[in-house]
Formats: sequence, C-alpha cells, structure tokens
Amino acid sequence: MNFYFILTFCVITIQSTKKCGYDACNLGDSTKLNVHLVPHSHDDVGFVKTLDEYYYGSRTDLQHAGVQYILDSIVLALDENSDRRFIYVEMAFFSRWWNEQSEIVRNKVKEFVNSGRLEFISGGWCMNDEATTHYNSIIDQHSLGLEFLNEQFGECGRPKVGWQIDPFGHSREQASLLAQMGFDGLFFGRADYQDLQKRNTTKSMEMVWKASANLGQQSWLFTGILPRRYSTPPTFSFDFIAPDDPIIDDVNLPDYNVPQRVRTFIETAHNESLEYATNHIIMTFGGDFQYENALANYKNLDKLIQYVNAQQMNGSDVNVFYSTPTCYLYALNKVNRSWISKTDDFFPHAHHPHGFWTGFYTSRPALKRFERYSNNILQVTRQLNAFSNSQLRNQIFNLSEAMAVAQHHDAVSGTERQHVADDYALRLSIGIDGALNVINQAYSKLLSKEGHSRVNVQQFLCPLTNISECLPIENVERFVVTLWNPTIHPVMDYLRVPVTNSYKVRDPNGTVVNVDLIPISNITKDIPGRMSNATMELILRYNLPTLGFSSYFFERNEEEKVEDLKITKKEMCILQNQYLRVEIDEQGNLQQMINLQKNINLTFANHGFYWYEGKAIFSERRLKFSIRWTKGYPGNNSQFDFQASGAYIFRPVTQNPTPVSTKRSLKCFKTSLVQTALITFNDWISEEIRLYDEKEDLEIEWTVGPIPIEDNLGKEIILRYDTNLASQSKYYTDSNGREVLQRIRNYRPTYNYTITEPVSGNYYPVNSRIWINETNRQFTILTDRSQGGASLLDGSIEVMIHRRLLYDDHMGVGEALNETAFDRGLVIRGKHFLYLDSPQSSSLYHRARSQQLFLSPLATFQLFNSSYTNYSNGYGQTWSMLQESLPLNIHLLTFDQLKEKEFLVRLEHYFELNEDHIYSNPTLIDLQSLFKSIGIIDQFVELTLDGNLELSKMDRLHWFTDEQHSGIENRKSLLAKQNSTIIFNPMQIRTFRIAIA
Amino acid sequence: MNFYFILTFCVITIQSTKKCGYDACNLGDSTKLNVHLVPHSHDDVGFVKTLDEYYYGSRTDLQHAGVQYILDSIVLALDENSDRRFIYVEMAFFSRWWNEQSEIVRNKVKEFVNSGRLEFISGGWCMNDEATTHYNSIIDQHSLGLEFLNEQFGECGRPKVGWQIDPFGHSREQASLLAQMGFDGLFFGRADYQDLQKRNTTKSMEMVWKASANLGQQSWLFTGILPRRYSTPPTFSFDFIAPDDPIIDDVNLPDYNVPQRVRTFIETAHNESLEYATNHIIMTFGGDFQYENALANYKNLDKLIQYVNAQQMNGSDVNVFYSTPTCYLYALNKVNRSWISKTDDFFPHAHHPHGFWTGFYTSRPALKRFERYSNNILQVTRQLNAFSNSQLRNQIFNLSEAMAVAQHHDAVSGTERQHVADDYALRLSIGIDGALNVINQAYSKLLSKEGHSRVNVQQFLCPLTNISECLPIENVERFVVTLWNPTIHPVMDYLRVPVTNSYKVRDPNGTVVNVDLIPISNITKDIPGRMSNATMELILRYNLPTLGFSSYFFERNEEEKVEDLKITKKEMCILQNQYLRVEIDEQGNLQQMINLQKNINLTFANHGFYWYEGKAIFSERRLKFSIRWTKGYPGNNSQFDFQASGAYIFRPVTQNPTPVSTKRSLKCFKTSLVQTALITFNDWISEEIRLYDEKEDLEIEWTVGPIPIEDNLGKEIILRYDTNLASQSKYYTDSNGREVLQRIRNYRPTYNYTITEPVSGNYYPVNSRIWINETNRQFTILTDRSQGGASLLDGSIEVMIHRRLLYDDHMGVGEALNETAFDRGLVIRGKHFLYLDSPQSSSLYHRARSQQLFLSPLATFQLFNSSYTNYSNGYGQTWSMLQESLPLNIHLLTFDQLKEKEFLVRLEHYFELNEDHIYSNPTLIDLQSLFKSIGIIDQFVELTLDGNLELSKMDRLHWFTDEQHSGIENRKSLLAKQNSTIIFNPMQIRTFRIAIA
Repeated sequence: MNFYFILTFCVITIQSTKKCGYDACNLGDSTKLNVHLVPHSHDDVGFVKTLDEYYYGSRTDLQHAGVQYILDSIVLALDENSDRRFIYVEMAFFSRWWNEQSEIVRNKVKEFVNSGRLEFISGGWCMNDEATTHYNSIIDQHSLGLEFLNEQFGECGRPKVGWQIDPFGHSREQASLLAQMGFDGLFFGRADYQDLQKRNTTKSMEMVWKASANLGQQSWLFTGILPRRYSTPPTFSFDFIAPDDPIIDDVNLPDYNVPQRVRTFIETAHNESLEYATNHIIMTFGGDFQYENALANYKNLDKLIQYVNAQQMNGSDVNVFYSTPTCYLYALNKVNRSWISKTDDFFPHAHHPHGFWTGFYTSRPALKRFERYSNNILQVTRQLNAFSNSQLRNQIFNLSEAMAVAQHHDAVSGTERQHVADDYALRLSIGIDGALNVINQAYSKLLSKEGHSRVNVQQFLCPLTNISECLPIENVERFVVTLWNPTIHPVMDYLRVPVTNSYKVRDPNGTVVNVDLIPISNITKDIPGRMSNATMELILRYNLPTLGFSSYFFERNEEEKVEDLKITKKEMCILQNQYLRVEIDEQGNLQQMINLQKNINLTFANHGFYWYEGKAIFSERRLKFSIRWTKGYPGNNSQFDFQASGAYIFRPVTQNPTPVSTKRSLKCFKTSLVQTALITFNDWISEEIRLYDEKEDLEIEWTVGPIPIEDNLGKEIILRYDTNLASQSKYYTDSNGREVLQRIRNYRPTYNYTITEPVSGNYYPVNSRIWINETNRQFTILTDRSQGGASLLDGSIEVMIHRRLLYDDHMGVGEALNETAFDRGLVIRGKHFLYLDSPQSSSLYHRARSQQLFLSPLATFQLFNSSYTNYSNGYGQTWSMLQESLPLNIHLLTFDQLKEKEFLVRLEHYFELNEDHIYSNPTLIDLQSLFKSIGIIDQFVELTLDGNLELSKMDRLHWFTDEQHSGIENRKSLLAKQNSTIIFNPMQIRTFRIAIA
Repeated sequence: MNFYFILTFCVITIQSTKKCGYDACNLGDSTKLNVHLVPHSHDDVGFVKTLDEYYYGSRTDLQHAGVQYILDSIVLALDENSDRRFIYVEMAFFSRWWNEQSEIVRNKVKEFVNSGRLEFISGGWCMNDEATTHYNSIIDQHSLGLEFLNEQFGECGRPKVGWQIDPFGHSREQASLLAQMGFDGLFFGRADYQDLQKRNTTKSMEMVWKASANLGQQSWLFTGILPRRYSTPPTFSFDFIAPDDPIIDDVNLPDYNVPQRVRTFIETAHNESLEYATNHIIMTFGGDFQYENALANYKNLDKLIQYVNAQQMNGSDVNVFYSTPTCYLYALNKVNRSWISKTDDFFPHAHHPHGFWTGFYTSRPALKRFERYSNNILQVTRQLNAFSNSQLRNQIFNLSEAMAVAQHHDAVSGTERQHVADDYALRLSIGIDGALNVINQAYSKLLSKEGHSRVNVQQFLCPLTNISECLPIENVERFVVTLWNPTIHPVMDYLRVPVTNSYKVRDPNGTVVNVDLIPISNITKDIPGRMSNATMELILRYNLPTLGFSSYFFERNEEEKVEDLKITKKEMCILQNQYLRVEIDEQGNLQQMINLQKNINLTFANHGFYWYEGKAIFSERRLKFSIRWTKGYPGNNSQFDFQASGAYIFRPVTQNPTPVSTKRSLKCFKTSLVQTALITFNDWISEEIRLYDEKEDLEIEWTVGPIPIEDNLGKEIILRYDTNLASQSKYYTDSNGREVLQRIRNYRPTYNYTITEPVSGNYYPVNSRIWINETNRQFTILTDRSQGGASLLDGSIEVMIHRRLLYDDHMGVGEALNETAFDRGLVIRGKHFLYLDSPQSSSLYHRARSQQLFLSPLATFQLFNSSYTNYSNGYGQTWSMLQESLPLNIHLLTFDQLKEKEFLVRLEHYFELNEDHIYSNPTLIDLQSLFKSIGIIDQFVELTLDGNLELSKMDRLHWFTDEQHSGIENRKSLLAKQNSTIIFNPMQIRTFRIAIA
C-alpha cells in the first residue's frame, strides 16, 4: 500500500508544478544544428473578413478561416501528444473563445499553459500596425491583452516575446514600448529586400535594437527577422490551406516519401543556417488562419521530427524539435555571444524594387481620423469615469476593445476590405455609444452642484461638426456645450458650432462672450451625405481648466443679427495676428509666412495639391499575392508590371505629380476671432487657411474628393509645401507620435540603398508631425491623423492626404482601394497645422500642440429648455481635477479606475533629450496632485508599461552588443522616488497602480 | 464501501453492454416530423486522385481530401459528445486506417461501434459501380469488406443497409445481391430526372424493389432515393470544403444568425416532407471527403439540433436528431405501411434532358478488359491455392484488394483521371504478380507426379497475346503451356500463340497435335508499343478437363515449314464449318449468317464501324460540376450547351453516326482450324471475323485506334450490326452479367418518358450480352468486357467500343477522356461473339458461353530446356479436381481456402426461369463431388451471399407492398438440403463454409 501512496503523491506533485516560460525550454544539443519548429497561426483580427467572420468562420466565399475551430482543435492536438507546442498571439480571438469554454476545457488549457505547451506570444489584443498607430493606443491594446492573460493565467500566461510577424515595416517606438513592457525579444517577418540581402549574407538577421534615443538600455530589445516571413518552409505545409504532400510513411506504397522529405528538410535547415549566426535556427510552421484542423498538421509534424532526427544515427547534424519563439530566444541568449545593434527603424518597407509599402500610411484617411477621434473619447471617458468614481469600466470595455482591434495591422492601416473597414467603424461607433453613457453618468455627478440634487444629464456628441453638421441643435432655443480638457495643462482654443440661427453665448461665469458667425461655404454644403440645414458656423473661443470642464450656455438671439461679413475675392489676402503674418497673392498662392515675434520669414515657391497616378496593371499577368522577393533583381522594370499601386503599395507611374488645377480661386474674410483664406483649386479640392486670434500656428483645413476616376486613372493626392528652406536632404518624422527620427532623402543608414522608386521610396509614416529645418528656421507641420510624407526636394514637404485607386496591389486584400460614400468617391476633410520658428524653439510648440491635438477637449452637447438662471442654479459650470497646472513637459497618458479605490495612471515626460533647453530636463511630479478630488494615496506601485507586472519583478534577459551603448542609463532614476513625488527623465513613461485610502 | 462496489459493477455492466443496430435507434416522436440527420463522408477509393493520395491527403493541388484525417478526427468528435453519430462505408480506407491505430484508439472505436455511434454502412471494400461491374466481383468486393468487419467488430460491425449514393444509375442485380447478403435496405442518390419528377410529386421516393425475376422475396430490397443525392441541405454545410456560414449564436453580434438558420432548417424539413411518405425524413450531412475536421462540423450541428428542437416550445413540429441510415430505415419499417414496388432497374441515368450517363458504359475499354482478365486470374489463383492446399490466401490478398478497388464507381467505370486509371492498373498488375507466385507454388504441387519429387515450376503469363506478343518464348527451343479450366465443365477452345518459328506441339498424352500457323497482320504489328518479333500465330485446339489443367509441350521444328497460306483479296469470302456459314461480299460487307443445323438465316443490311461526334463545349460558359437538375426543363436546347460528351456522358452532336470509311478492304484466309476474314475499314479500324472449327459462334476481333483527333472532334466509336430481324423495338441486355432485362426503345416502364436524346437515351449497360429476337430467330452478341449498347432500329444492335473525347463533361473528373499510349491515341482490341439460333435454344449458348468467356482457361507458360521425355517423366500433364462434369446449369462461382481445412464455396444455378426447357429446372449438386481430391466434408454451413453470416441467423426486416408478389418463394427450398446434396433453383447462388475432416 505504501507504494500506491507514494505514486499518488508523485502524480499530485507533478500536476501542481508549473514549468513554463524559459523553464519549459528544450535548448537542443550544442553539437547539433538545432531547429526550433514553431507551430503557429497568424490570425488577423479583420482583413478580408471581419473579426466576427474570422472568429466564427463565416463568409468562406471570401476566405477560409475560422478561429473558433483553430482553438478547439489545438486543445485536442496538444492533448494527444505532450511534445507538441503551440503559440497564440491575438487576445481579441483567444479571450472570446475562452469565454465560451467549459471549466473542463479551461482547466486543460491552463495545464497546457502551465507546462509551456501552449504559450502566449506578444499577447496584445491584436498584432498592431506600426506605421499608422499612436503610442497611446499601442500601449492600450497591449495592456488589454496582457490584463486578460494576467487575470486568467497569471505568471505563466505572461508573454516574453513580441511577435510582429506581419506588419509592413517596423517602428522603433514599437520596440521601445515592448522593451518597457518587459519583453525580452521581438521577432518579425518583413524587412526591406535590400536590407535582407545584406543581412542574409552577413548573418545579421538578429540584433540588439536600441529602440530609443533617450531611454538607454531600458529600450533595448533583442530583435530577430524570421527566415521566411512567418510561413512554413517550402514543401512542408501540412495545413489544409494549400497543403503540400503529407509524410507518406508506408514503405509498401509507391508514394512512400520519407527519404525524400527528410533529405529536403535537412537541406532546408542547412540553407537556413547559412543566414543565421548560431547553431540554433527557427522554422515557423504556420500561416494565416492555419491549424484549423491541427490534428492533421501535428500528425505529419510528429512524423517529420521523428524521421529527421532518426537520421542522426546516420550522421545527420540536424536536431529538430517542437519549440516556441520564447525558447528559441532563450537558446540564442544562452549562446552568450555579442550581437550587432541597430538604432534606426525599418521604414519604409519594400519587398521588391517597385514594391514600396508606403501607400498604407495614408490609405483610408477617414478611418484613420475616426480612430484618433475614438481614442480621444476613450481617454476622456476613462478620466470622467475615474474622477466621478462611477466604476463603469465594464461599460467602457466595448470602446477599449474596438480601439484595440482598430490598432490591427489591417485596420487603422487601411489595408482591409471595404466591408471590414465599415465593421471597424461600426465597432468604434458602438463603443462610443457605450462611452457616452458613461460620460453622462459621470457628468451627472460632476456637473451637479455640491449639496444639490443630482442633475439630469443627457449629453450627446456632434461628431459631424467637421462638416458643419449637428442636427440635434438645429433651430433649438437653448443648448449647452460642455468641454472636457483631458490634459493636465490649461487650454485655450476655438469651437466651431454649426447653427441655423445666431446665439448668445455665456461662459461658465455667465458672461456673454464675443462670438463670430461665418457663413458655411458651398463646398461644405455640397459634401455628399451632409443633411444639415445649418448655414453658419458660430466661432467661440474657450478657456478650459486642467483636467476639467467648462460649460457654455447658448441662447438663441431674439433677433437675427448676422453681421455683414466682408468677403474679398481676387485680391491679395493677408492673415495676421499677434504672432503670425501670412500672405496669399491674388491668384490664391501662399507666398510667405512670417513669425512676427522672431522675425522669421518663410517664402513659399509653391503650395498646393497634386496627384500621382497610381500604377495600374497593364499586363494580364496578375501574380498570386504571396510572391516573395528576397534575392536578385535584374534591372528590367517590365517584370514588375504586375505591381499596381493599392491599399499597401504606393507606386506612382511617373515621379512628377500633376497639379490638380492650373488656376485657383481665392476668397478672403476676417472676423475678430479668425481670419480665413478659402482657396478653391477645382470642383473637388479646396483648402481654408485659418489664422485664429492669439494662436501661434496656422491651420489649413483641406477638403478632397470625390476624386474623379472617369479617366480610369487611380489618383493619389498630396498637399505640397515648397519653401526656400535649405534643408539639405534631411527631414524629420515622428515614430508613433513620440520620438522623432531624422530621414535623409535617398539614403538608408544601415545598407547601401539603390534607388528604384524616387518618390515612394522616400515616404515615411507621419503620425503626428513632419518638419524640415536649417540652422535658424524650422518649418513644422502637425497632422490630425496618420499620413505618409516626404521631402523630395530641399525645402519641400509633401503629405499624401487621400488615395483612390482602381487596382488591387496583390498583397492579399484583393480589392482596389476605391472608397465611396453615397455612390460617389469619398470626400475627406482634414487639417494641417503649420508652425514656423527656430529649431531650438519649435519643440516646445510641436510637443505641446501635438498632445493637445491628440487629446483635444471633448465637446458634448445638451439641450436645455429653460433659462440660463435655471441652468446656473442647477449645474456646476466649470471644475478642475487639479489644484494647479502640472509641468508642461509632463503628459497624463492614462487615468483609469480599476476598482473603487484603485487606479491605473500613466504619466510621461514627452520631450526628448536636449530638445528644449528648459523642458528637456528631468522633472518631478507629485502623484498626489492628480488625486486632489479623489482622495489620499494610500499606496502605489510602479508597473511595467502595460500595467500588469510590478516593475520590481521585471527581470529581462541580458544581451551583449558589439557597440558601445551611447544612451544614458535611466534604470536607476526610474526607480527613484520620494513619497509620491516621482522624477521623469526625457521620454520616460511611468505606470502606476495607485490605491487611495 | 458497498456503494463503491456497486458503482464499479454498474460501470462495468454499462461498458460491456452492446447496443448497436436497431437497438441503438432513436425512433423520434410519432407526433412530430422526425428529421434523421445523418453525418457521413463520401470517400471515393480513387477518382481525381488515387486511393493512396486520398488516404494520405497528398496532391491537394488536384483535390483537398485526406481520409486518414477524417477518421482521426471522427474519433475525437464522437468522443466529445455521445449524441453524435457517424457512418463509414469504404473498407478500403477504413481497414488501412485501422491497421495504423493503437490499441487505445481501437478500443475507443469498438466502444463507438458497440454503442451505435459509429455505424458501418454497406461495408464493401468500395462503393461499386453498378453499370460496368460483374456480379462475381461485386460479391467479392462486398465479401472482402464484410469479412474485415466481421473479424474486427463482430455482430455490431455488420452493416444492415446498402449505400450506393454516388453510382450513376442502379442495377437490379446489385439490389438482389445485397438482399441475398442479408441487407434490409438500400439507399442511393441518383435517379433519372424524369423519374424523380414523378416520384417527388407522388411521395414514391421509397419502394420495395423486387430485384430478381427468379428469386422471389429473397431478392426484395427496401430501396430509398435520398432527397439531395447525398449532399447537405443547401446553406447548411459546416464542412471546410465549401462551407456555408456557421451557426453564430452570440446574440450580441450583428452577425447573430440563429433565428434565420432555424427558420430555414424548418422550411427545408417541411419542403422535404412533401416528397416523402411518412413523418420520418432523412437529411444527409456530408459530401465527398467531408469531415476532415469533424469537430467543426459537429460543433455547428450540435447547435443546429439544439436550436431547432428548442422551437418545439414555440409549436414547431420539427424534431431533429443525429441518426443513421439504419435507424432511418428502421423508423420507416416501424411505420408499418405498405410501399409501392419496382421491378425494372434505374438505367440509364440522366440528370437533365441532355445529360445521359451512358458514355461510361464504354469509357476506358482497356481498363474494363484488364479488370475482367484480372478477375479471371484471381479466381483461378484461389482455386489453385485451394486445390493444392497451399494456404497462401494472404498472398492473394493484393489481387483480391486490387479487384475490389477496381469495382469502385470511378474505377472500372472509366470515370477517373488518367493517372488514377494507371494506378488501378498498377494495383491489379502488382496483385497479379503476387497471384502468379501462388500459381507457381500451387502448380509445383499439382504438376508433380505422385511419388515423385516436387517439380520446379516457373510459369509466367503472357498477357499481351491479344496483340500477338509473348517475349519470353521468342526464339526458344521448347516451352510448355499449361491451361487451367476454372469451370466445372469441360472446355474445348483455341489458343493463339505468337511465335517466331514453327513448333511441334504435343498434347498431354504426348501426341503431336495438328496446329496451324497464320501470319501476323501488319495491323497488329503496327500497334504502338508492340515489341515482339513474332511474325506468326500458332493456332492450337485444346481440350481441358473440368476444374483441371492440361499441358501442351512446344518444341521448335528443326526445319521451318510454314505452309503457304492462300490469301484471297477482293473476292467473296465464305466462312463455313459444321454449324455456321458466314458470307462476306467482295467489298468486305458481312452479308449473311446461317445456322446450318437449324437452317436459320440472318441477313445483314449493314455491318461496320461508325463514329458519333461527342459534343464539345462551344460556349465559354463552363458551369460548375455540381449542377443539379431535378425540376422544370424549358425546352430550349441552348441552355444545355455546357453539356459535353465526356467520361460519364454520351452526348452525340447528331443522332446519325458517320461511317468510319466509305470503302473497306478484305482479305480472306483459311486453315483447318480457323477461317478468317480480315476487313480493314481505314488505317485505324479493322476487324477479323473468325470461324473456328467446331465452334457454334462467330468471333469478331476488332481493333480500333488511335482514333484521330486532328480535326478537333471527339469521336465515339460503335460497331453496328443491322439485320433483317423484326425486333419490334425490343432488345435485351444483362444486369451485371446475370439476369437479362428487356429494353424497349424510347420507353421507360415506370414513367412517361420524354425523348430528348434519341441515341444516348436508349443506351444500356452490356456487361456480357445483348440480343434482339423475333419469334423464331435470335441474334445474340457476347462481349469480352462491359460496353454500352442499344438497338436504335428494329433489327439493329450497336455497341460502343471506344471513345476519345476532347472535353470534360463537368461531372467532376475534370479531364477530357483522351487516352493515349506511346504518344498516340490508345488502340483498343476486343472481341464480340455472334450467335444465331431460335430464342428457345439461344439460352443454352449464351449462358454457358458467357461463363466460359468470363472464366476462361488460364494459359501459363514455362520454358523447358530439355526433351519432352524428360518433361513427361517429371511433370503431370493433365488433372481434374472432379470425378465427373457437374450439371451444365451449375456454375462454380467461388472456391476459396479459408484455413487449412476450411473452404468457402459459392455455387449457382445460372439459368433463369423458363429460359431453357432443360436447364431452367431446379438442379441437385452434391458438394462432396467438388472435394474429390481434398477430402471428406466434415460439416458445412450455408452462409449469406457475402459469406460472413450463417444463413440461419439472417433475420431481415419485413416490408409490405401494395402489389401481389409474383415471384416464386424460394425461401423454403433454399434451406432444403439432404446430406451434402443441395438443390439449386434458377438463378440461385448458394454460399457455404465447408470444413473437411
């Protein structure tokens, strides 16, 4: 009987031991070539199908893909053989599946996770795009996934490796953020073909990426480029999606293929090892939505492994085994060698000489803007929920999730099918509806006067004010606009309210303020789908407290008194305020811009809209989308005829864009608050150049579309600014809205660059800003969404703002990027903000202004059918979370209530080193100052960037690199804190879980 | 503790209880419309891919299908939910998979089988074709599968239902054979569209098929036509092969589809019930190679069943549940109603007015002949193995299996891809190699003289003697031909041996026999691929004992003495022997044929070769293959433009075939043994009309090909015999080589027939014979393989003998039937045997002769390099199993050794009722007479036709039909036996397991 007891004890012990992460790794045989065979499925959270269609597996007419089945079948496959391993990446899918599972299945999955057989990799809600995303949302989407994993699986569920196998170029900021989340490494699939050519032959496919110019080693991330993007080695696909032949191991059959299959595998391993630095190599086995019938994959992989390793008896040096990216990374780490380093990024990406993936920087400009707008609402909603102690985090989940999904590399990137783009927008819209409910519940507290009964708040958004439409307030007598400032700095800005009548507007003090009325242009009135009867816009200057709101009371004027607005035409138009003078000649040409305070003058040789003709497919030869170009490009252009300009690719037919018109018309009109030049280029392109009172920058609102295609030519529209700046081939673009990288025309920092696409090859993502400069002048453009931009001539900046194309570019989406609405080409309206100053002084502007644009004051509207007196008696009209404004170089990135007395807060220093002589310095913040109206901080703990691990528990692998590290060591200061006063170094983001008493 | 013991006991009890077959059936709810949902996979044992390719799942470029995965995944799916059921049909696949499984999996599968969750249906090695197969091989292929099932699963593994869901028309004999195997019912998928139109509207989709005109109730088989062939109801496919949308049951999603899916399902059930007679209906859920990822199918089916039945709470009358064909059949039986009956067959099959599946009766004539030849060898090998007590049954398995596979409805039918046809031939060839080894081991016993040492036997086959090639004997001095007579009647026939020299031939008595030498024609010499240097054929008349052999010793003549053969040209040619006179005019026209003994004269208006132009596809509109035509055909022909003539379909462009030549050449030459007229029609068609000495029939050997296609026209070649018989629209064709059915031109016995294809619509399968007659004359043609035949005019018979087509007919094979060899169109050579007599006397000829042709004497060759004396000293030269010839109307169908002292024997009465005034009588046989040289019968037991169940244990369901049963009741006589003397009624096959002492 003793024997039985002992046995039982053993079994229990084994079951209760967790052995995951690096502890669960097979590190191979140091005398062999170790092949880490990594089964995986790449599951886009929307692309050719919607997220739901992919999850359920519907619409197989579009694509065969059903994630529910993948996860169902993986459970069975892992259960069959404990050697098998699988990784899973996208929590958007996994969490949904998890919620449908029985306890039995969940326990089985936990067993797999706790034994390293199922490993979560990356673990974000999606695999986010890196070119068109903003760091705020990248962090959020990763945090959402890691939070789910932490809650359900704890320590063993926490990923150690980033997995960006599909995105189309890689940003440095992404790597930096992953490092700050505690990731030990990053693998991705796509690198530029010229870059790869060099790396392939110099065994430099793997490196230490120094991912921040400011953060030092905390931003370092070991980074590897996978050998075949993320696909299965040729001829070894056992997945039902385009499979190769299985392993046929019945020796009696004529089709018996084991010797040939083993031979090919060993060859493949040897060939791959030529390109990699160690005796460990990785082979991904998988692809888009593979492993739906995992049993079939693993049955053959089991055999392959068995027969390949059996050849060791005959002297083969190949040792293959199931592994994971984590274990491969760990094996590389254990090799204990020095790796090369990398300090720039992986943009732009090209897979062949005429395949530059620079079109998607601009594709679907409406979705790109809606994504920004949705985030604005999300962050405001989180703040309002927290500050009002509403504890409605669950009701914000839909928007959090929709935003996380929207970060996907076929979402905000614009590279999805039309109906999928519509679905993303629908998800955001549903999320916003939920958020609005939270906003109302929060405001019902925050707007209520202390000691008074709770007010009834029924606020609504007017998301179409950009086309001067807000139907609920049309013709009403009274309404209130409440503006929430989500930043920790006060803000002065202007609101434009489309109205049918004139209104008297009272500020929070009851003072009637000066407002202007401006007629709505015919251009706006003609925008397809606009339903408003508003004929005027009311211009209101507002001042908002830090992290707080002000309400403005609108009451219809008893008698219409619309001032006659003087409108000049065909005369020179000069816009001038306290800071800026802008001259536009009588033909509508922007001529110069003068910073009056600094006396800096910028002359424009040219400013206007142009179009590139997007390459069409002339030949019948339409190649399949999975063409890979990694080696050898004979110069002949015709072989790339198939490459059209499309959702991903920007391939202009000629390198000189065509002006959209030969002449333009000009209208000029001025009020006390804003001076405007309306320049009409043709019947589908115009811009309004606006200079607001007391504003230092110039606003350009452009309206483009419907882009005509009657000539059967696809068109890619740019807005170009040609100045007399001697920019010496250099230009500067931001990385995910944060650090800025220098770009040099026709040049790559790490390899000899052969120019094949003089225009497209110089485009870079512009998430928030692009500038050029010379010693004393800097011309900066801020954008309201992600766009592609370039400087193709010294002094010139061009930004692509809209695209309408007639051919698919064969990268998988299978649809031409030809957006329409109301049966016409889509009209896009957006803004650029122009700033002229010295380089030394420009940072202060673009850093602060870009954060303010990204987290704008949120205007919510409410009808009120009683007098102002009644309103002011019942409602608080202004309020701030903060006692004082916090330092200008600190930004409140996240303020989220986790539980009743627990909050997640992210603050950041958002200036780079040496950028500004004041604001680039380390800065102190007392966390308690944020909690003025919430309570006394009881305890707080600093977390990794994603907010799911205590920073003190983060223990990243150490890597050696062959170069001296040039950044500063922030690690020590990161941990320095006195009471709740925290120091922030340049570009440092710090994340805290804060409990109040 | 007691409690625990009881519990354990209970568990054991449950596990050891078998509840399968009818006992495991859910019979639904009598107040509801019960929907039997039957998940199944239709797994062709070769079609677009080979058997091996289908099993392993290789060559997915051709078709996605991998049976190993289907069975793997079914095990998991059935394990997940005990409500789920699955059926499996093809033992060629299942047995292979079974052999690869672990004991754990096998036990699990046994549990499924013993609980009715996995049910074997049909259980043959394949799902055999019904039009081009011979009953001998149909029985064999079913027996092989049922033997496997019996051995592995016992009683619960035995199928109760036939499942011929895919074959292209259905033979009456197939139903009769299934009934005799003990099957309770048969379901199939394809019936003629006009037939269906009537049945759909009269609720007569299900019937009692009286499947023999001779056997009475033992041949009755309940037969049902499935509602949608065998496919899943539209929009409800959850299989990864072309799936519809899954059940999306998350109510929060915009795609939530449960109400709509449930509504559609209920509608589908109601619509189907309009066409069926009871409140039980069947819905097959499956298709070709479906359920590879069964988890996905069942996950959705589970949901569908749940949500549909949930509607019963809201008054729905639809009750759906997992079921099987067996349970559906049982439910119908329990309804206890009377069913209509059917006495004819389901040929020919058409799915639309121009889609007659009558081409495949002839497609791949070479494969069709090779299959017959292979069976001949198989049966001979079994006999030799048994009679020699060699116990080498395992070594015959390869040929047994290859023959079983060849019965598949895309094998001998000729409707497979070319490389698949090649694979079938390869399998047969490998099987023959193994059989030859058994033959040699058997002959080494049987040829050894008693008391002498065992002789060394190294015999070989000369399978190419049909093109006068036998390379091993070329130029040799001496060789021996041993001929085995596999019938229980003596045989006299002729052997043609291709030789390079003249030989002296001794019969088994040592007597030098008279032989003739005939020069080999240039036609034969020019056949592509022929490698022989033989210039002559040696004609030998042989006489063989019953079930025994005779050897003929060939010794090269010292001096070549080739007689000058007189060859006449352009003269009338009269062939005449003791029985027959045949007149051919100087232009080569067959003019008349006279039965000299009966003085019956048949005049030919015409005899020769013609070609139909096979319809090509003129329009670009190539429809997908799964077009179903069940209702409503507007008369317009153009809508069927897509329908080409192809592997399945015979669709001539015009109804009048073109003669292959306007003139012909004639050579006439006669020897003592054979008189020959060689008629050359053109450079690719000829025939030799041969009259052998003492033979009552006329042999026509035709040679066709390469069919020219330089004119881009597909051609279908017929051989036509136009006589002066007043056949009054009637003609007669056999059903699988057994009973003969009357056909009436442009008429169907059970429905009003609209003529749309005057030629193709009158074609029927000719497996062994076709005849026309009038009161006193009958003109009978026997064939050497299955062909299509018709009588399109009174007095005329045409037989299609070869086809070469340039377009695919869109029925799935995806390849034009354009057979080539040696880079030219395939040449086909074959034989017709013509017989002229009174109708009363013709049966004796065609019954006996057709069995003799089907089981011909098998010639094996052996080189011998010593004298005849030495040969005759060492080798026995003739021997018979039988003491005496058995009655002429009894045929030995099977003689197989199961174990050392156990044999399986099938004997049959092969005359129909009232066919012959002598031989149509019941006949007695003493089984012991067959065991002359084996031993004394110890015990014997009569079995079902398949040989796997004792007949006394067969207990078929009883069915009522609305008509009087007109057959005779054979049941009683079937069981009558006295000692080992058994009575046989007309067309009765009896199967015995016999143990010898």
